[in-house]
Amino acid sequence: MNIFQPSDPNYESRIRISFDKQEVMKTIGAKLVKVIPGEVHIEFSFVESLTQQHGYIHAGIVTSVVDSACGYAAYTLMPSDSEVLTIEYKVNFLSPAKGNKFKGIGRVLRPGRNITVCSGDVIAIDKGKEKIVATMLATMISVAKQ
Amino acid sequence: MNIFQPSDPNYESRIRISFDKQEVMKTIGAKLVKVIPGEVHIEFSFVESLTQQHGYIHAGIVTSVVDSACGYAAYTLMPSDSEVLTIEYKVNFLSPAKGNKFKGIGRVLRPGRNITVCSGDVIAIDKGKEKIVATMLATMISVAKQ
Amino acid sequence: MNIFQPSDPNYESRIRISFDKQEVMKTIGAKLVKVIPGEVHIEFSFVESLTQQHGYIHAGIVTSVVDSACGYAAYTLMPSDSEVLTIEYKVNFLSPAKGNKFKGIGRVLRPGRNITVCSGDVIAIDKGKEKIVATMLATMISVAKQ
Amino acid sequence: MNIFQPSDPNYESRIRISFDKQEVMKTIGAKLVKVIPGEVHIEFSFVESLTQQHGYIHAGIVTSVVDSACGYAAYTLMPSDSEVLTIEYKVNFLSPAKGNKFKGIGRVLRPGRNITVCSGDVIAIDKGKEKIVATMLATMISVAKQ
Repeated sequence: MNIFQPSDPNYESRIRISFDKQEVMKTIGAKLVKVIPGEVHIEFSFVESLTQQHGYIHAGIVTSVVDSACGYAAYTLMPSDSEVLTIEYKVNFLSPAKGNKFKGIGRVLRPGRNITVCSGDVIAIDKGKEKIVATMLATMISVAKQ
Repeated sequence: MNIFQPSDPNYESRIRISFDKQEVMKTIGAKLVKVIPGEVHIEFSFVESLTQQHGYIHAGIVTSVVDSACGYAAYTLMPSDSEVLTIEYKVNFLSPAKGNKFKGIGRVLRPGRNITVCSGDVIAIDKGKEKIVATMLATMISVAKQ
Repeated sequence: MNIFQPSDPNYESRIRISFDKQEVMKTIGAKLVKVIPGEVHIEFSFVESLTQQHGYIHAGIVTSVVDSACGYAAYTLMPSDSEVLTIEYKVNFLSPAKGNKFKGIGRVLRPGRNITVCSGDVIAIDKGKEKIVATMLATMISVAKQ
Repeated sequence: MNIFQPSDPNYESRIRISFDKQEVMKTIGAKLVKVIPGEVHIEFSFVESLTQQHGYIHAGIVTSVVDSACGYAAYTLMPSDSEVLTIEYKVNFLSPAKGNKFKGIGRVLRPGRNITVCSGDVIAIDKGKEKIVATMLATMISVAKQ
């Protein structure tokens, strides 16, 4: 159902290069698994070094991954000489981030010349079962590359 | 101007024990530096392993720290047999998280029997100058300890 | 794709009675047009008395309608002796609320014993064409009827 | 503690003219009572035509007033040939909007060339006592006047 047309045909390599510069994604162990116009998926596995007090993944780490997924989803549709920045986001936590694998999905809701609105979800895979753990609504901005 | 009266006199040790269980805070290098009724401060230093593509601290890490600060600020006022969970938050990013040291401050705006609303800020210290990099508005819930 | 099972078989009349008490919905000229488990639709028509400075419907009125739609969507799944209250919401405005007719749609994302998370959209119908003008992510709470 | 310097010395008349075009403010009975650089106050009185099912002011009306206060607070600092639009906001409802008079206060947190972040509060005056009923965190954008 994807109807977005990227202005930059090389959007995928542009995003992979930027993602590789996000040192925090290495710290999380996150991988970019899907990059299509207006949609990006990032996966990571459970590690104890990312947990909160109950042994589940910390809300902020869940947020980091879906923020990058939403930002890059927006960035697929931005011009080649732009940068993407997060203006703001809101996240609702729907269940504890319990599982062995997690997937952050970012999707463009409405692209714009400057402002792009995205929605995102984080899915936990726990003993083979998928469960949504968080949902994001985010505002991204395109700025000229410096 | 703090007018909150905690129901649990041992709120500080309760929070320090919980904070020490947040493995992600060790990964970030974050320290709990202030715990008073309705207010918690958490500090961390710049490390490259937490950066985004421009070399600044990733928005999600900034969020992790101020989420913990807000959650524990709420938790200072919750009963001794409770747990605190984040229902949701919204964060606005006001400037890039550029600096050598960062402080996340969480404050209770309105405590409640179940629901506590908090506001938070993240301050960057860059070459001795303080700058606000993010502001959070968050909803926390008190649940019975299991 | 609705898989919600309301605990109260009389949820619809309960919601219609509550909606009729919302005097502001009469001021807006809003009508409850669909009430199914976990989903509520509310429609209203353009009137000049609800406009902002550019002659479109004010963001707060758009919000009023989708807040009621989300609140009642949550309320369909709450027990018969409960009340529903809005804890908080976030709304992104995707295009000006320009049109002759508007529809606010509220849907339950995740129901809970106390807390229900909803998403909502407002659609404008302008010269027969539908356009999404706003999207909401909201947290509702069930409280005992007084 | 206001340290903002408006680029347009005629910001106040610009805002009063725009406010007077917001027909919905007349419907609410709202008055612009304070306009200073980076801060705007709007007041209104209780009327039954704006209530929700429990007889208090509807969350969306509370939101309308503080959205206009935040938008105009941002607009005080924008250039004379600009328009202000709301990109998004989040509101937490801290207590029921019960009272005979209400005041919406919008304040600029961080101004920017395009994007301005604001915070807002709504205060109810109930039998002479002030109580905060809602708090907003909002993102505004400056666009060229058409």
